Amino acid sequence: MSQCYINGSYQHITNAQVSVEDRGFNFSDGVYEVIKFKSKILISYDKHISRLKKSLKELRITSPFTNIISLKIIIENLIKINNLEHGFIYLQITRGTAKRNHLFPEQSKPNIVIFSLPEKDLINLKKGVKIGLIEDKRWLRCDIKSISLLPNVLDKQSGFEQGFFEVWQVRNNLITEGTTSNAFIVKNERIFTHPKNNFILGGVTRDCVVKIAKENKIDIQEKAFSLKKIYHIDEAFLTSTTLGIIPVIQINDFIINKKKVGKITKQLISKFNKFIDGQSSI
Amino acid sequence: MSQCYINGSYQHITNAQVSVEDRGFNFSDGVYEVIKFKSKILISYDKHISRLKKSLKELRITSPFTNIISLKIIIENLIKINNLEHGFIYLQITRGTAKRNHLFPEQSKPNIVIFSLPEKDLINLKKGVKIGLIEDKRWLRCDIKSISLLPNVLDKQSGFEQGFFEVWQVRNNLITEGTTSNAFIVKNERIFTHPKNNFILGGVTRDCVVKIAKENKIDIQEKAFSLKKIYHIDEAFLTSTTLGIIPVIQINDFIINKKKVGKITKQLISKFNKFIDGQSSI
Repeated sequence: MSQCYINGSYQHITNAQVSVEDRGFNFSDGVYEVIKFKSKILISYDKHISRLKKSLKELRITSPFTNIISLKIIIENLIKINNLEHGFIYLQITRGTAKRNHLFPEQSKPNIVIFSLPEKDLINLKKGVKIGLIEDKRWLRCDIKSISLLPNVLDKQSGFEQGFFEVWQVRNNLITEGTTSNAFIVKNERIFTHPKNNFILGGVTRDCVVKIAKENKIDIQEKAFSLKKIYHIDEAFLTSTTLGIIPVIQINDFIINKKKVGKITKQLISKFNKFIDGQSSI
Repeated sequence: MSQCYINGSYQHITNAQVSVEDRGFNFSDGVYEVIKFKSKILISYDKHISRLKKSLKELRITSPFTNIISLKIIIENLIKINNLEHGFIYLQITRGTAKRNHLFPEQSKPNIVIFSLPEKDLINLKKGVKIGLIEDKRWLRCDIKSISLLPNVLDKQSGFEQGFFEVWQVRNNLITEGTTSNAFIVKNERIFTHPKNNFILGGVTRDCVVKIAKENKIDIQEKAFSLKKIYHIDEAFLTSTTLGIIPVIQINDFIINKKKVGKITKQLISKFNKFIDGQSSI
């Protein structure tokens, strides 16, 4: 059940280890992806790999895979040997093991770890979640999917302890995104979400929702929305690979649409589910 | 020569490993210290431990040591079994090993790793180094000595490739600090360095230099200095635990004091060396 892949071999996860001189461990010098699989089929695989390549390029880590086919075979084999149907693949690549020094080592071989994460129980979340607001304290390259996640961890935890499922981060009075998800609001049948730039991670599910909205002639604007706007919205939702689309029914003390899931949110959830089902039944 | 300490035992560093589910490895959810030792004596040990405690507190990781004496014995023993005279101790504590989830695990035992780093060859650096300037892209809690160091790594490397020993980071037109050191300038016999707040890591050597200056009636202001001011300075230097005080003789294209080490910098270096010698000969 719990085999993982590490640097060329499959091992039980409790035995899988990296050096204490791994640069991911010492410097958060690495990147990651989380990929959904349904009925053993990897969802939006090419999009995740294309983002992974971008992240590796930003860190100037040479891709350890000669081609993306070999990586796919490794992942599909992991799903097979663990006999999994549905869940998520976690894939992390660091710059490798080297004597501690901030400068890139002259030679280093990336360390690669791949393991599975279980499906989440979304039943309660689908009714809608409460969101808090917090100052966006992260660095200015949030577009890189790096393992430098301490700010996200601390703020997610802080929100959780205040009773929030997620917190939306605010920079210069604008909502950027959640700590592990992208943020969307709906006002007068028009959807708003932060544009893809250095202030947010361009989520694969975010992009998919934007595409689905456009294809279905639902008005969607990739435009940042202000804190003030929040208190006049009709609907809100968040997206992530592990959650899909989750309705937001409350932001801080502000109750949205009488805590009911909004019309446009429902419409998108239905179309998104069809999209996922379409991929996984190929 | 290369034994390290990991979670209660001493092991050769090439065998020392942590789980791929360590939260330091997955989330940079951990803190560290680098402590100098000279003639087997730990320098400013109490100051490093007090900062370590602060970092652990900010991350809400319960200190794994019942008292700082037990940690000191572990470190001194590591120096002894490796038969080291001079060098640095690297100490890293993460929140521990847990199934991947941004939220703090309900139960987790911190992972502790301690290893030594060799002395640096400072001969050429003592003549003065060149500094570049770069936008400070880091998060807003630079006062926590966390292992979330990817921004520092990328900018240090970028500076190195442009021929700079270090880069000074600029936020809102003010110099904050280097990627691995604190920044000081001297103008009209008055020293300026950024005050200790969330924008810089309050270095142990920085604090020591401030104290030495004050004790010797050298005018020192813990006040941020602007980018513009740089082009009118008489002297500059940087400080860190691994480097001590290193003169800066050039910032970008601007040559300082005809590339000669300045009077006040020399004075401080001499007094700082005496301070270190005083501690290590106890």
